[in-house]
Amino acid sequence: MRYSRYFLPTLKEDPAEAEVISHKLMLRAGMIRKVASGIYDLLPLGLRAMRKVENVIREEMDRIGALEVLLPVVLPAELWKESGRWDQYGKELLRFKDRGGRDYCLGPTHEEAITDLVRREIRSYRDLPLCLYQIQVKFRDEIRPRFGLMRAREFIMKDAYSFDQDDEGADKSYRNMYEAYERIFQRLGLRFKVVEADTGLIGGTSSHEFMVLAQTGEDVLASCEACGYAANLELAERRRPHVFSERPSPKSPELVLTPGMRTVEEVSAFLGVEPSRIIKTLIFETERGPIAALIRGDHELSEVKLKKALGLKYLQMADEKTILEVTGGPLGFSGPIGLRIPVVADWDLIGTTDMVVGANREDAHLVGVQVGRDFEVLGFFDIRKVSSGDPCPRCEEGVLVLSRGIEVGHIFKLGTKYSEPMGAVFLDKDGKEKPVVMGCYGIGVGRTVAAAIEQGHDQDGIVFPIAMAPFEVYLLPVNLSHPETYKASERLYEELRSLGVEVLYDDRDERPGVKFKDADLLGIPLRITLSERTLKEGRAEFRIRKTRETFLVELEEAALRAKEWVEREKGLVGA
Amino acid sequence: MRYSRYFLPTLKEDPAEAEVISHKLMLRAGMIRKVASGIYDLLPLGLRAMRKVENVIREEMDRIGALEVLLPVVLPAELWKESGRWDQYGKELLRFKDRGGRDYCLGPTHEEAITDLVRREIRSYRDLPLCLYQIQVKFRDEIRPRFGLMRAREFIMKDAYSFDQDDEGADKSYRNMYEAYERIFQRLGLRFKVVEADTGLIGGTSSHEFMVLAQTGEDVLASCEACGYAANLELAERRRPHVFSERPSPKSPELVLTPGMRTVEEVSAFLGVEPSRIIKTLIFETERGPIAALIRGDHELSEVKLKKALGLKYLQMADEKTILEVTGGPLGFSGPIGLRIPVVADWDLIGTTDMVVGANREDAHLVGVQVGRDFEVLGFFDIRKVSSGDPCPRCEEGVLVLSRGIEVGHIFKLGTKYSEPMGAVFLDKDGKEKPVVMGCYGIGVGRTVAAAIEQGHDQDGIVFPIAMAPFEVYLLPVNLSHPETYKASERLYEELRSLGVEVLYDDRDERPGVKFKDADLLGIPLRITLSERTLKEGRAEFRIRKTRETFLVELEEAALRAKEWVEREKGLVGA
Repeated sequence: MRYSRYFLPTLKEDPAEAEVISHKLMLRAGMIRKVASGIYDLLPLGLRAMRKVENVIREEMDRIGALEVLLPVVLPAELWKESGRWDQYGKELLRFKDRGGRDYCLGPTHEEAITDLVRREIRSYRDLPLCLYQIQVKFRDEIRPRFGLMRAREFIMKDAYSFDQDDEGADKSYRNMYEAYERIFQRLGLRFKVVEADTGLIGGTSSHEFMVLAQTGEDVLASCEACGYAANLELAERRRPHVFSERPSPKSPELVLTPGMRTVEEVSAFLGVEPSRIIKTLIFETERGPIAALIRGDHELSEVKLKKALGLKYLQMADEKTILEVTGGPLGFSGPIGLRIPVVADWDLIGTTDMVVGANREDAHLVGVQVGRDFEVLGFFDIRKVSSGDPCPRCEEGVLVLSRGIEVGHIFKLGTKYSEPMGAVFLDKDGKEKPVVMGCYGIGVGRTVAAAIEQGHDQDGIVFPIAMAPFEVYLLPVNLSHPETYKASERLYEELRSLGVEVLYDDRDERPGVKFKDADLLGIPLRITLSERTLKEGRAEFRIRKTRETFLVELEEAALRAKEWVEREKGLVGA
Repeated sequence: MRYSRYFLPTLKEDPAEAEVISHKLMLRAGMIRKVASGIYDLLPLGLRAMRKVENVIREEMDRIGALEVLLPVVLPAELWKESGRWDQYGKELLRFKDRGGRDYCLGPTHEEAITDLVRREIRSYRDLPLCLYQIQVKFRDEIRPRFGLMRAREFIMKDAYSFDQDDEGADKSYRNMYEAYERIFQRLGLRFKVVEADTGLIGGTSSHEFMVLAQTGEDVLASCEACGYAANLELAERRRPHVFSERPSPKSPELVLTPGMRTVEEVSAFLGVEPSRIIKTLIFETERGPIAALIRGDHELSEVKLKKALGLKYLQMADEKTILEVTGGPLGFSGPIGLRIPVVADWDLIGTTDMVVGANREDAHLVGVQVGRDFEVLGFFDIRKVSSGDPCPRCEEGVLVLSRGIEVGHIFKLGTKYSEPMGAVFLDKDGKEKPVVMGCYGIGVGRTVAAAIEQGHDQDGIVFPIAMAPFEVYLLPVNLSHPETYKASERLYEELRSLGVEVLYDDRDERPGVKFKDADLLGIPLRITLSERTLKEGRAEFRIRKTRETFLVELEEAALRAKEWVEREKGLVGA
């Protein structure tokens, strides 16, 4: 592609609208332009990167026998009422009426639509297993769309759905998809981790997230280098601690005045005790009434883990009014002593003594508190978020390490969550009617490109992995008005093209500085520079974008050497 | 692809929901399923056919230097207000509000969105010409969606937009696109005609439609075999007739009673005169007030031609009240004599005598009327729809023939209709600011597949042209429980695949009758049948779907011969 005939408007400055690096670089590199909040145009360069991702996905989906379909963007309300999500799915589901006054929505995900299709066409166990996927535009009316393609309202997603006779079959489909996802992100040249994850709004029995590792990631994940265990921080478990018997609290709990001291930090500073000796008492509302959850002051509670530990469906922080009703005291001074609601506590509180708790009255705490002696705990559970250094829950020797990542893929075992209410059934070998067992599997295509940029960039711009790079080679003649340079450039361009190398040929009438800056910005893996100086020696300069390594190549061999480099790079990345 | 692992639910019976043949066959062949009115799932087979069309389009767009982008489905109202179409575009524009209460619509076409993108990025004449295209889902809230993918509400479209410095450049872009469209439909193996067309809601100065010829087409087109002239019936012109002086009307107009006789047919039968001797007087409202338009009773007026002839922007048939006011008589008895509004007439009325006209009073007509003597005509124009046999307007010898077609592509010269109100300007060579001159170009992808089926089918099912066929070969073993058949089928399947032939292998445990019926229904160009009978002689049976021609081929050579046949077929079609 000749740059002069391409539509590739680059920006010299960071645009004000962008907060994160991938958003900034995608705007600067002319990959995207904003149309409205969370809604973008994909320009030719951006679309090329997206298509590379889509093609890798498509090949890996086809490899595991998944079949491509295309479902509508506009979905009738009836289907969402059948599953119950018309009411459950908040305002992210954009609802509207057509000219006939009938209710529709823009599909944010397609479990209902695919279940509807499949229930009408499958009859017997012979029609199963079945796995369908699509690569398609979706819409979620995010309250705060941001970070460009990272959290857009309109976005391209690959979503797949599996249909099996039983849990065993569903597990197999899930494993196939898990492995396909691993291959996809490997082939795309990304450093990533697969983590156990929460099932959230989609529902189902278990799920894994595929996280691209990046300092700037929104998600935190915990992983064990020893055994490979990894989970989203919300869900990550730890080994149950050994309980050492502590010295009993010297005395009974004693009331101390702590005027205006509500937070752990305030109380810790005021009383001169470590945060780890303070017990945070959090009041929640649940479908079984209010409960109190206790964790150490230096820890953070995980609502996902608390819900799971207690088998709760509904969990919400109590408001001030409820706290006053339940504890008798205001927000910030809650404590477990004297509470008439169930109290659960984190493992780290087992057997602790000489602790500080809220006194359930304004401006007061109790010190010298001993868990078990001064109040009763219904049970001890793993309900806090893990910290770096916590022991791994799966192996004996490992410890957990926290890192940041960007969720680019998410796979779910759905069980019969959709097939049962929507009547997606089949006749088994014995002629008995059963609901199909489903799984669903998503990859955010635009988000994968954005995540690759968060992971791969430097101060000069993008550093694309070759599998996702919109072009493989950037051909940069320093001065096209120099006849030898012009001739050599045009010839090399044709040679590269005829070898099937994807080349962006900077044939613009621009200053060399502009061209070099754009070449770095666009992140194309191999730059070939033709200058008067090196041409005199019959050579071209190769520069690897990623390593910034530079070397000279005989001009005669340049096209072939470039081709070899590209293939080696692709092979290495895929291996 | 093994049929047993494919998702290809065929139907034996014509579904009740379908009226036209392509809709019926696409449902029966498991290509599409209805989700809601005018909204369809594309199943794997349907999607494969769509993708073949998309790929041909993409190659031809790339060949003329058009660059692929992807614009949003959800568009902000602001852009449509700038062009004025937020108010002009009727209810087909589906409008809604997001969670923040802001107005959006689903894009039915993307002139505004692309003009917005381009105006922000182009600065000077050096950025032009530019041609951008996308292949994307669109939504039009049709009042009566019907005929499956032929007139769906949600549909896939290729839309391209060209941007030039001046009319000359725009004409060149238009010609390039015209030729690309010709190549696209030729490569897809379709019989089609390019016709001059009306610009309608899109606006602009001129346009052509690409019509796939089919008996069942909704559109009528007129064409001249001698010189190639072709136009949509609404717009088709004819040569101005030679005027032979007729014998003057024997007497002055004479009033005859025609009780209840309103239509040409009724008056003709009642008075015993040919319809060609009756003058239809049609009253219209226009921006310049009411007018009367006269045509012969055996002809049909073209409102498009009338508007063009008189340079009108607004034209609407008058209602009964207006007719009574303007003519003094009721609907069905209007005539030109004594009218005080402008009267225009079709060429065929020049110099006619002894005609019948309405008397502008209930239940009465005038006979013996002579045009020019008994009433004045402001002007004679070509304002009727042409008929078969009318002389061609472009060449001396040809006559027009009417045929039916399906509009699959439409190209428009837009001029500055969008660039002017939206401020898409550039600096020309002299540093003067000018609006870019635009063109827009659409192909309905799903509609092209449907049109191919309307053109290519027989009583047994679809007859796909090879370029659009979801598979090239249908491999049909008659009885897989016969070990020799099984072995030969599996081997041939692998051989075909390794030669790159796209093969659907009917490995189902079904009766031969079912397999043969499905093979015909799906319309795959080459069927290879393996039966006990022919295998005994070491042969396979080839059958060409289109010609129903059958011949035996040595089993050893079957894969190679199939490959050759496919390539020849592709070559022939492309030539």
